[in-house]
Amino acid sequence: MYNQFLNYRKKMKDVESAISLLNWDMETYMPEGAASMRSGHISTLSSIYHELATASDYESMLKNLQDDTTLNFSQKRNVELCLKDLSRAKKLPASYVEALSHATSSGFINWQKAVKAKDFSLFAPSLKKLLTLKKEEANYVGYEGHIYNAFLAEFEPGTTSEEVDIIFQDVKEKLIPLLKQITQKESADNSFLKVHFDEQKQWDFSLELLKQMGLDFKYGRQDKSHHPFSTSFGSEDCRVTTHVHANDVMNTIGSCIHEGGHALYEQGLSAIAYGLPEAQAISYGLHESQSRFWENNIGLSKAYWQYNLPRMQTYFPEQLQGIDLSTFYRAINIVRPSLIRTASDEITYHFHIMIRYEIEKALLTDQIKVEDLPAYWNAKYKEYLGIEVPDVAQGVLQDVHWSHGAFGYFPTYSLGSFYAAQWHAKLKELYPDFDAKVACGDLAFIKEWLNQNIHKHGRLYSASELCTKLTGEPLSFKYFLSYAQNKYLP
Amino acid sequence: MYNQFLNYRKKMKDVESAISLLNWDMETYMPEGAASMRSGHISTLSSIYHELATASDYESMLKNLQDDTTLNFSQKRNVELCLKDLSRAKKLPASYVEALSHATSSGFINWQKAVKAKDFSLFAPSLKKLLTLKKEEANYVGYEGHIYNAFLAEFEPGTTSEEVDIIFQDVKEKLIPLLKQITQKESADNSFLKVHFDEQKQWDFSLELLKQMGLDFKYGRQDKSHHPFSTSFGSEDCRVTTHVHANDVMNTIGSCIHEGGHALYEQGLSAIAYGLPEAQAISYGLHESQSRFWENNIGLSKAYWQYNLPRMQTYFPEQLQGIDLSTFYRAINIVRPSLIRTASDEITYHFHIMIRYEIEKALLTDQIKVEDLPAYWNAKYKEYLGIEVPDVAQGVLQDVHWSHGAFGYFPTYSLGSFYAAQWHAKLKELYPDFDAKVACGDLAFIKEWLNQNIHKHGRLYSASELCTKLTGEPLSFKYFLSYAQNKYLP
Repeated sequence: MYNQFLNYRKKMKDVESAISLLNWDMETYMPEGAASMRSGHISTLSSIYHELATASDYESMLKNLQDDTTLNFSQKRNVELCLKDLSRAKKLPASYVEALSHATSSGFINWQKAVKAKDFSLFAPSLKKLLTLKKEEANYVGYEGHIYNAFLAEFEPGTTSEEVDIIFQDVKEKLIPLLKQITQKESADNSFLKVHFDEQKQWDFSLELLKQMGLDFKYGRQDKSHHPFSTSFGSEDCRVTTHVHANDVMNTIGSCIHEGGHALYEQGLSAIAYGLPEAQAISYGLHESQSRFWENNIGLSKAYWQYNLPRMQTYFPEQLQGIDLSTFYRAINIVRPSLIRTASDEITYHFHIMIRYEIEKALLTDQIKVEDLPAYWNAKYKEYLGIEVPDVAQGVLQDVHWSHGAFGYFPTYSLGSFYAAQWHAKLKELYPDFDAKVACGDLAFIKEWLNQNIHKHGRLYSASELCTKLTGEPLSFKYFLSYAQNKYLP
Repeated sequence: MYNQFLNYRKKMKDVESAISLLNWDMETYMPEGAASMRSGHISTLSSIYHELATASDYESMLKNLQDDTTLNFSQKRNVELCLKDLSRAKKLPASYVEALSHATSSGFINWQKAVKAKDFSLFAPSLKKLLTLKKEEANYVGYEGHIYNAFLAEFEPGTTSEEVDIIFQDVKEKLIPLLKQITQKESADNSFLKVHFDEQKQWDFSLELLKQMGLDFKYGRQDKSHHPFSTSFGSEDCRVTTHVHANDVMNTIGSCIHEGGHALYEQGLSAIAYGLPEAQAISYGLHESQSRFWENNIGLSKAYWQYNLPRMQTYFPEQLQGIDLSTFYRAINIVRPSLIRTASDEITYHFHIMIRYEIEKALLTDQIKVEDLPAYWNAKYKEYLGIEVPDVAQGVLQDVHWSHGAFGYFPTYSLGSFYAAQWHAKLKELYPDFDAKVACGDLAFIKEWLNQNIHKHGRLYSASELCTKLTGEPLSFKYFLSYAQNKYLP
């Protein structure tokens, strides 16, 4: 019976992998004229997947297995999690899923138009429609406490909006004064990094860095796309993409390391458990804890560049001539309030997220109207970051997420960073020579620790269980605060 | 009701397109470690496709439509052809399909081993197993006349083994003496083409040639793979691949033009009829009539190179310095018996095919034993081409087809060439200035004629109907013979 379940899950995963490949190809190699046909391919396979994921045979199979006392811990857990996923999937009527799919398709198109025209009113009707649908969804899936929990349950299962509130209260109370302290003495110059760096050499260097992290190119690859992303068709085929910025080399490198962190998580999932929750990432926040750990805690550290700056200088001897480690390190770690989330530093980043989180809660509870959103956004940027927003394209329209109906997603970015700081602290405790090892280019022990302690468990433990198991307590903001203080105050 | 049928066919085609993308990716970009997982993806989607293609709901839908008197010609024909496909698909029990799938998987692996070791005995057991299964298949699907018709029906529907026999009788009687005449006076030298040609420049030049043919890169692309192939996910996404041979530039170019011909067919199929027989190629032979028409009748013609040799010289000024059109033309048209089918000229090519066809018929009717195959092969090469086969890798094991269980496929290569000659003759009759136009780089009228007369009909007409409609008679070897005589005898 359990074998039958394994085969069924394998079939589901095979279909899901085909959908992921259709998406990967769409962002990398697909000729432009194929766009509308491709959305048809994806929609057909998604509905086949949905049928498999909600089939009554599958449900009976799971219910029978639930009563099977011969199953071991991981088998039981796999069955439990599949039942949980099935129960959520079944709550959404097919008509709702279809309506949402149409609303997000046209929402995305209208968002693109609005960005281009710098005109929020072109997107507002879509956003209203999406909010109405998402509120409907919340009623279908049900929730306790704040309506936001209905969406967090999808992206960050086990974490409530009330818990996120507490964390962002910390951000507000402790990060705002810290930011003031840092920016008062900020005087670094990064202009030498904003000149032209040969694109092929950036690409070659990024591959070197990915290999250094331990990304296994026998089971993965890097390609180019407009927006960098990572994807996986099972742990034996995990791919990253990047966008090479000719005049912003650190943007390229940062995003390569970031996506590499995601891909290491996917490569670290069990190949044997292909198709099972045991071979799935715990949550979006945990996934982001991997990417942001590598991108920031490692990739913006002095030790990392002690090893890699000389390497980078061999690729770019002209641009980096005479740049010493300390100059380079300060240049890549400038903290300064800015308009665009994706280009922000590791401290102000969380204000960008907090603003979006507060707005999402306000929208979902009708505390603000969609029409008033741009003004509300601009006021928040003034309040938290002290900056003026020149237009909606650089303001409320800068992220694609809402056009996809992805409410409840943004906080996972901050949670990921805070988890990352907690892993970082633990690793430094376990390896007192952590920085010395990194400074010699030894990253293998880090990958190994992440593999053994986080990746290999898949979803067998919840984020909170795993965090407590590894660090002795659930997620706590104090680790990030202490990381930021130690890094930026001296 | 017809709309329901359209939606169902679209769904089937979406799944088929996803399978094609999984295959395309496997041959182009997939990391090597993903191979076994990928065959799982393909196998799962193939079985989903098979379920859709044989579903009883689908059958009832088709049977109801069969009685619908309101349908027009193309609608009726779409329904008829779907019923025909369904009927064939239903005849194969799932257990047989699975057994064949396993036999071809291991057959392919053993074939690779046998090629590497130059040891036929490593492949012989697989070949025996495959032959047994294919004979079983013939009984499931049924046939009239020769057992070979059971397989031709799949690749070249409407053409019988008895008709193919007549054509190859012509090949034997007329091409053998012609070949003798040609080779007696063959003295051209192509050594200047067998030196190193920069790979990137070969790639760039091949793209120029594909664009010149009218391949629309808004709806297609070229990538690299070990063996060149073309694929399509619908007429809005048709892709070719190539293998760049550093020391054999004409091999690269010939295969690019060949695959381009396939892709033009696919791009020329109706986008509106996506998923219907009306948007499918007629047969393997007709597909090959497109690729070989472009590769040989156009791509090896003097007029074509009158326009393109100067272009090629701008890419490769050093290698082609002082080479005049007549020298170049003779060098790319050397006719000489050789060992390897895929590297053979357009005349001797058909002896390679004829040998395979005769062997397949003999194997399927137990006239020869698998053990005796290498000796039989070598004797045939001696008889028809007058050459000695040094080893099985360059002999009986040179093609992958049998390891895939693809019996009945080879003759479509020759049929394709003979159809191509018939189109060529018709075009020359319609356009008395055919060569003059080609010599000016005007290929648009050719593409247009193929689009309007062949591509756009899809499967609405059979190969024979279409051929008669276009040229006044069914396929006839005389066009190829006359093409060959006119080209090679003067």
